[in-house]
Amino acid sequence: MESFEAVQGIRAADLADHYGTPLYVYDGELLAGAVRSLAEALPRPMEIFYSLKANPNSSVCSLLFAHGAHAEVSSLVELRTARTAGARPENIIFLGPGKNAEDIRACVQGRVYAIVCESWEELELIEATARQAGLRQRVLLRINPSFGGAGSRLAMGGKPRQFGIDEEQVLAGKERLSALTHAVPLGVHVYLGTRILDAAAIVENTAQVLALAERVAAATGIELEAVDVGGGLGVAYFENEQDLDLDALRTGLTPVVGDFARRHPRTRLLLESGRFLTARAGAYLVRVQYVKESRDTWFAVTDGGTHHHMAAVGVGSYARRNFPVAAVAGDGAGPERRWHVTGPLCTPEDTLARGVPLPGIAPGDVLAVLRSGAYGPTASPGLFLSHGFPAEVLVHEGRPLLVRDRDTADDLLRKQRHHQFVQ
Amino acid sequence: MESFEAVQGIRAADLADHYGTPLYVYDGELLAGAVRSLAEALPRPMEIFYSLKANPNSSVCSLLFAHGAHAEVSSLVELRTARTAGARPENIIFLGPGKNAEDIRACVQGRVYAIVCESWEELELIEATARQAGLRQRVLLRINPSFGGAGSRLAMGGKPRQFGIDEEQVLAGKERLSALTHAVPLGVHVYLGTRILDAAAIVENTAQVLALAERVAAATGIELEAVDVGGGLGVAYFENEQDLDLDALRTGLTPVVGDFARRHPRTRLLLESGRFLTARAGAYLVRVQYVKESRDTWFAVTDGGTHHHMAAVGVGSYARRNFPVAAVAGDGAGPERRWHVTGPLCTPEDTLARGVPLPGIAPGDVLAVLRSGAYGPTASPGLFLSHGFPAEVLVHEGRPLLVRDRDTADDLLRKQRHHQFVQ
Repeated sequence: MESFEAVQGIRAADLADHYGTPLYVYDGELLAGAVRSLAEALPRPMEIFYSLKANPNSSVCSLLFAHGAHAEVSSLVELRTARTAGARPENIIFLGPGKNAEDIRACVQGRVYAIVCESWEELELIEATARQAGLRQRVLLRINPSFGGAGSRLAMGGKPRQFGIDEEQVLAGKERLSALTHAVPLGVHVYLGTRILDAAAIVENTAQVLALAERVAAATGIELEAVDVGGGLGVAYFENEQDLDLDALRTGLTPVVGDFARRHPRTRLLLESGRFLTARAGAYLVRVQYVKESRDTWFAVTDGGTHHHMAAVGVGSYARRNFPVAAVAGDGAGPERRWHVTGPLCTPEDTLARGVPLPGIAPGDVLAVLRSGAYGPTASPGLFLSHGFPAEVLVHEGRPLLVRDRDTADDLLRKQRHHQFVQ
Repeated sequence: MESFEAVQGIRAADLADHYGTPLYVYDGELLAGAVRSLAEALPRPMEIFYSLKANPNSSVCSLLFAHGAHAEVSSLVELRTARTAGARPENIIFLGPGKNAEDIRACVQGRVYAIVCESWEELELIEATARQAGLRQRVLLRINPSFGGAGSRLAMGGKPRQFGIDEEQVLAGKERLSALTHAVPLGVHVYLGTRILDAAAIVENTAQVLALAERVAAATGIELEAVDVGGGLGVAYFENEQDLDLDALRTGLTPVVGDFARRHPRTRLLLESGRFLTARAGAYLVRVQYVKESRDTWFAVTDGGTHHHMAAVGVGSYARRNFPVAAVAGDGAGPERRWHVTGPLCTPEDTLARGVPLPGIAPGDVLAVLRSGAYGPTASPGLFLSHGFPAEVLVHEGRPLLVRDRDTADDLLRKQRHHQFVQ
C-alpha cells in the first residue's frame, strides 16, 4: 500500500471505526498480486515457498496458497496452520535450528515434502524417527557456506553459525550420508541473507547456491531432487530505498536457472519468501489519543506502538528510520508539521515515527503505518503492559473479513493460575 | 538468583523435567526479600509501588503485595490484576501516556488513589469523567522536568517528551488548575530514568523531584498530598556491574526525605519499582537440543530464546552483553569451553549468550538464564514462529506452584478466524 485512504473501495476510516483500533488491515488483492508478480519473475522450475513466520494468519496463508504459493514452516503450529490453510504435504518444508523429536515425528507422519536439516545430530534423529515409523523422509541439508552472500542486510554465510552444517563438513560427509536408510538427503538448502533489494545480488546468490549444490552432489553422491536457494527478497521501507526490480530479477535468473535446469531437469528449485509476499499488503491503523507539544516538538500519542509493531518502532535497529506513515482519517485542519507518532507504553522508545511530516492532526484521527504486513503482531511483544494483540482484517473482493479477534482481558489472563498470598 | 542448582531445596532440573522447558521459575523468598530490603532502605514515609509491567503475573503480584508493596498499573488488565492480587484501590496509581476514556472511567469508578496525568488534554478528560460520575479523582501531574536525571541508562528529563507536561507549562498553569472541580491535582510525578545502579544518583534525583514538587506547589497553589519520585532502581545484569548499595541508599535518602517530611508531614511519598523487585528472583530454564561446532565455535542450540526473553538476547541494545547463565542439569562432562547459547528461531540474533564459559554441555542438559524475573515473557514476542508463551512457576515455602500454563496450539490459534480461499 502506497497510500491508504481506502482498500478496495472501503475507507480505512470506516474499518477503524467498525473494528476498532489498533488494527491490522491486509489487502487481499495486493497479497495475490505479490505472489503472481513474483511467480512471473521466477523462471521455471522455481517454486515459491511462503515463510509463515512473516505472517502466520491462516486466512492470509490460505489466500497466498490459493494463488500458488507453497509453505515453509518452522514449528508444529505453523505446520498445522499450513495444512489448515490448504497447503498439501508435498508442498511443505519444515525448517529451523531447534527441532525436537515431536517436530520431526510430525513431519514424518505428516509426509511433508522435506525437512531442512541443520546438523548431523538432527540427521540421526530424522533417521531414527523415520525408521521407527517405517517411512522414508526426504531431507534437504542446510549448508553453512564458506562464502558470504551478496546484498543482504544480515549476511549469513562464511561465519560460524548455529544454522546448517559447515560446507567443509558436508563435502567430507559422503560416508555418513550413504549410511542412511530412512532419512533421504536429496538436496541442499542455503540461506544467504535477508532484506535484499538488489536483483543482481539475488541472482548472484542463486548462482552460488546452485553451484554449491552441484559440488555437494559430486562430493557426496546424493541425487539433487531439490535445491532450496533461500530467499531474503526485501521490500523498501525507508527513504532512499527502492523495491526490487522484478524485470531485472527475471532477466538475471533466466540464464542461471536455465543452465542448471538443463543439467538437472527433474530437480525442484525452491525459493522462500515471507516479507516480499506480505509486507506491502498490510497497514497498521492507530488512533490518535492526544496531541501535545513539548519544547517545540509535536507529539501525536496514539493507541498503538511497540507491542504490536516492533519493526516500525525500530527496536533492534542501530539507526532508527521511519516506516511510511499516512494520515487516513481526520480533517487535516491545522498546519502541516513534523510529528513524533508515539504509543501508549511507558518508554520514550515507543515511537512509531519520528519527525514525520503530516497534515494537522487532532485526537480521534487515524494514522496508518504502511508496508506492515510482515513481522507485525506475531513478531511483537503483544502482552507488554497487558495490552494484548490487536484485531486483523483481510479485505477480499471488496469485503472486509475479520481474520483475528482482538484480545480481551479474559484472553490475557486465561493462562494464569492465581494463588493468593497474605502476610 | 546468583546460582541456580536449586530453589528452596527443589532442584531446577526437577522443575524442568516436571513442568517442561522453556520455563520461567520465580523464587518467592527472593521476591519477598526484595520488597523487605527495599522497604528497609527507604526512610519513612516512602512507600513502594510495584510497577506491574515488569512482571504482571497475578501470583507474583500477590506475593509482593502481601509483603507490603502497592501497585502502579498502566492498563485496564493491569488494574484488574492488581485488584485480583489484593492491592486496595487507595494503594493503586494508574500511569501511561495513552489513557483512553475507558481507562479513566475505570480509575474513577474503581476509586484508585491517583491517576498520573500526562497532558492538559488528559486532565480535561479526567475532569469531565469524574464530573459525570459525580466523584472527585485525585491526579498526580506528571512533569517533564527542565533538568536531566543522574545515573540513568535512559535519561528522561530536559528533552521534548511524549510524557508529562513540561515543567514550564505547569509552573504557569495556576489558572487552569484552579478551574478544576472534580479532578484534584494533589501532587506531582517525575520519572528521571531507568536501570540506575548508583545510590547517589537516586538520592540526587529524589532531592530534585522533591524540590520541583515544592516549586510547583508554590507556583500553582496545589496541596502536596503526594509526590511520586519515580524510580528506575536497577539490578546488575552484566560483567562489571554492581547491584545497588541499599545501605548507601538509606544513608543518602534519610536527610533528603526527612527534611521534606518535616515541611510536609502529611504528604505520601511514592517510589515506583518493577525490575528491582522481581529481576533477581527469576530464572529462565531452557533445554539443550543440539550441540554443534561451526568453524571452531561451539553452539548449544536450546529450545528457548528471543520469543520468551528478548532482554537477554539483547534486541534493542547497541552493545550486546550476556545475562548471567548457568548450567543447572547435566553431568558437566567434556571440556569447559566458551559457548554460544542459541534458540530455535531462524535468525542469528536469537542468541541468549555469546561466548559464555560453561562446563561440557550435551543435548538434554538444562541451562538457566539468571536475573530474568523482570521484563521476561510479557515483554517478548511470544507468538513469533508460533512457538507461544512459556509456563511459569513460583516456588513458595518450598512448594512449586504453576502460575501460568504453557500455551498450547489451540491457545495460539483460538483468536484467529479462518477463511478458506480457492483459486
